[in-house]
Amino acid sequence: MSNETDIGDLQAYARGLAQAGQAAARTLATCGRSLKDAALERMAASFLENAEQIASANARDLEAAEAAGLPAAMVDRLRLTEARIAQMAEGLRQVTALPDPVGEITESTLRPNGMRVARMRAPLGVIFIIYESRPNVTADAAGLCLKSGNACILRGGKEAIHSNSAIHELMVAALTDVGLPADAIQLVSTTDRAAVAHLVHLEGLIDLVIPRGGEGLIRAVVNESRVPVIKHYKGTCHTYVDSPCDIEMAERIAVNAKLQRPGTCNATETLLVHADVAEALLGRVGPTLAKAGCAVRGCPRTRALLPEAQEADEDDWADEYLDLILAVKVVDSLDEAIDHVNRYGSKHTDGIVTTDVRHARRFIDAVDASSVMVNVSTRFSDGFEYGLGAEIGISTDKIHARGPMGLRELTCTKFVVTGDGQLRG
Amino acid sequence: MSNETDIGDLQAYARGLAQAGQAAARTLATCGRSLKDAALERMAASFLENAEQIASANARDLEAAEAAGLPAAMVDRLRLTEARIAQMAEGLRQVTALPDPVGEITESTLRPNGMRVARMRAPLGVIFIIYESRPNVTADAAGLCLKSGNACILRGGKEAIHSNSAIHELMVAALTDVGLPADAIQLVSTTDRAAVAHLVHLEGLIDLVIPRGGEGLIRAVVNESRVPVIKHYKGTCHTYVDSPCDIEMAERIAVNAKLQRPGTCNATETLLVHADVAEALLGRVGPTLAKAGCAVRGCPRTRALLPEAQEADEDDWADEYLDLILAVKVVDSLDEAIDHVNRYGSKHTDGIVTTDVRHARRFIDAVDASSVMVNVSTRFSDGFEYGLGAEIGISTDKIHARGPMGLRELTCTKFVVTGDGQLRG
Repeated sequence: MSNETDIGDLQAYARGLAQAGQAAARTLATCGRSLKDAALERMAASFLENAEQIASANARDLEAAEAAGLPAAMVDRLRLTEARIAQMAEGLRQVTALPDPVGEITESTLRPNGMRVARMRAPLGVIFIIYESRPNVTADAAGLCLKSGNACILRGGKEAIHSNSAIHELMVAALTDVGLPADAIQLVSTTDRAAVAHLVHLEGLIDLVIPRGGEGLIRAVVNESRVPVIKHYKGTCHTYVDSPCDIEMAERIAVNAKLQRPGTCNATETLLVHADVAEALLGRVGPTLAKAGCAVRGCPRTRALLPEAQEADEDDWADEYLDLILAVKVVDSLDEAIDHVNRYGSKHTDGIVTTDVRHARRFIDAVDASSVMVNVSTRFSDGFEYGLGAEIGISTDKIHARGPMGLRELTCTKFVVTGDGQLRG
Repeated sequence: MSNETDIGDLQAYARGLAQAGQAAARTLATCGRSLKDAALERMAASFLENAEQIASANARDLEAAEAAGLPAAMVDRLRLTEARIAQMAEGLRQVTALPDPVGEITESTLRPNGMRVARMRAPLGVIFIIYESRPNVTADAAGLCLKSGNACILRGGKEAIHSNSAIHELMVAALTDVGLPADAIQLVSTTDRAAVAHLVHLEGLIDLVIPRGGEGLIRAVVNESRVPVIKHYKGTCHTYVDSPCDIEMAERIAVNAKLQRPGTCNATETLLVHADVAEALLGRVGPTLAKAGCAVRGCPRTRALLPEAQEADEDDWADEYLDLILAVKVVDSLDEAIDHVNRYGSKHTDGIVTTDVRHARRFIDAVDASSVMVNVSTRFSDGFEYGLGAEIGISTDKIHARGPMGLRELTCTKFVVTGDGQLRG
C-alpha cells in the first residue's frame, strides 16, 4: 500500500470510489432482503473457513506494530484471535437475523382528497466510515451497512491494513458469489490521509460520514467535511445521586457506572451528590473506589468527606478519563446538578438516582443528552442493551440519530404519495 | 443598521447571539405547551392590532427597493398588504392549535432485565434560519421554532430589514408579556454577510442551520458551515407517464404539475413519456401547453411529435426553470425513466402515472427522491398538503428530515431509560 500517490491521482481515486459506491447503492436499494442475507451468511461462513488466512494477515500487522513500538493496549486492540474471528462471524449472523429496515412504512395517512401519504424507509446511499485500529470493525460496519441497503467505503487504521484487506477480500467474494456488486463494500487502499479529505468533500456522491476514534480525528473530519457527519466526540457521563434516594441502590449504581469497564464511553466520569446524602453515599462509595484503585478528584466538600481525594480543577469537570479516576462534586439542589451536567457534559449519557418522581421528570426534561438514565447505570447506553440488535456507533448529535445507532439509523424515509389522479387546485 | 461593524466585533456579536439563544433554549425545552401557545396567541393578536405599524415599516423597505430598481417580482414578494399581515396572524394561530411535539414518547420497550427504554422528542436547541426577501417568513419560521421548543436566530434579506424588525419587535414583546425569554427569537441586526459566516461556525452553540433561498446562497452556507445544514438546492421534479396508463389522467396530471404554479419548487420541470403512449399524450398535452404560453424543449422524438419544440440540450435535463418551460423526453422503458430521474433529478419530488402496480412499486423503490408520487401531481409535495399542519421548508437531504418539514422535524429524540437499580454485568 503505497503512500506516494500524488494528490491529483488521489482526488480521482476518491471520486472513483464514491461513484462506484453510488452505482452499487442503486442495486442494494432494490435488491430485497434475501440476497443481502445470503451474502451476510456466506461472509460469516467464509470467516470461519478462512480463519487462518485472516490470522496470518493479522500477524503481519502485529509484527509491524511491535516493531514500531506501539503501546501494548493498541497491539491488543489490533489482535484477531480465533475467538475474535468467531465473534465477527457470529456478529454477521446476528445482523442477518435482524429485520430488514428498508421498505418499512413508518406511517401512513389518508388525506381528505383521497391521496395516501406514507413514509417509507429507504437506504441512505453511500456511507463513508473512518475508524482506528480494531480490524473487526471492518466486518461489523460493512455488515450493518449491507443489511440496511447502503454501500460503504471503509477507511481503517494504517496499523490494521493487512487484516482489513484480508477481511474485505472475503466479504467481496461473498458479495459476488450471490450476485451483488463487489463495490457494495469498498476499502480505501491507501493510508494517505489526503484521501479522506477528498472523500469528505464529495457532497452528492457520499451521503454520510461516520468517524469513529479519538476526538482529534473526529474534529478534523467535521472541519473538512461537506458531507453530513454523525459522531460523538467523547463521553463525559454523569451519575447524579439525588435526595431522596435509595442509598444502597445509589451506591451500587455509582460503583457499576464507574468501575464495571472504565475505558468505555458510557462509563461515568463525574459523580454528583446532593449535600443531604453526601456523607452517607461517599462513606459507602469511597472505600470501594479506593479498593479498586480508583482515584477521586473532588470539590472541597467532597475532600472534607474523602480526605485522600485530590482537588478537582475546572478541567476535571469536562474530562473524559477513560480510566480509574472519578470526579466528585457535592451539589445543593437538583437544578445545580442539571446545570452542571448541561455545562460540562458531552451530551452522551447522564443518569439520576432518585426516589422522587418529580425530580426524575425534571432531570429527564432538562438534561440535554442523547440518553438520560433514571435509577440504572450509565453503562447501559449501548445499542445491544437497548435492544437495537446491533450498533454502528453512538451519536451525540441532535440531527438524524441520537444515542446508540442500529440498522434503522442507517436509513432515511421518503414520502410515498399515491392517488387516483388528484390535481392541486 | 450599520454595515461598518468590524470583523472582531461581528465575531463577538455572533457568539453573543448564539449564547443568548442557548440560554433561552434551555427555558423553552421545559416550559411546557401553555406558555408557548399563549405567546403565539399574543403574537397573532399583536400583528392585527399593530398592522399599521408593520405596514409603515414595510413601506420604508418598499421605497428603498423601488429606489434601488429591484425587479417588480421581488418588490411584490417584499410587500405586506393587510391581507398578508392577516395571513401571518392566521398562520400563528394554526401553529398554536397543533399538538406540541416535545415530550412525545415515540416508542418504548421493556428489556429482559426490567429496564424500560423509551425515545422521547426533545427540541433541537438553537436554529439559525437564513432567508431572502419575504418578510412573512420572519413570523412563520419563528412561530414554528417556538412551538417546537427551539430558540431561533433569524437572518432575513437586507431589503426587508425594516419589515422584519417591526415583526420581530412585536414577537419579542409577546414573549416577554407571557414570561418567556426575549432571546427565544433573535433577529440578526446587521446585514453584513460576515455575521452569517461567524454564526455557522458555532458548532455546539447552534444546533441546526436552515438556509432558504437561491442555490448560490445555500451552497455558500454549506461550504462554510460547521453546524449541520438542512436544505434543498432546487426542485428539478419529473413526471413520468408510463405505459400502460390512463391517458386522460396522465394529461391532467402533467398539465397540473407544470402549469398550476410554475414558479414553485415542486412544479414539474421534465416530462418523461413512454414511447408507446408518446403520440397520444403529447398530442393532448402539446396544445394545452402552447395555449398557456409554455415552451417545450424536447428530445428528437418529442420534436417529431411537437414540431414547435426547441431542441433540449444536456443542461435542460438538469435545469430548474421555475417558469413556463417544460423539458420533454420520450423513453423506451420504465428503467430508462428511473435512470434519467436519478441522474438528472434533484431528489425533490418525482412522479409516475401508471396503471401497472408492479411499475408503481419499482418506481417507488428505485427513485431516490424525498417524495415519490404515484398518479398524483408533483405539486402536492408540501407540508400542508401532506397534513403536517405547517412547513418550515423542504429537505432533499437524507439525514434527519427528508421532504416537507413540519414541527416534528424540528425535534430530535433522546433515549429515556428507567429502571430500579439495574447494573451492567
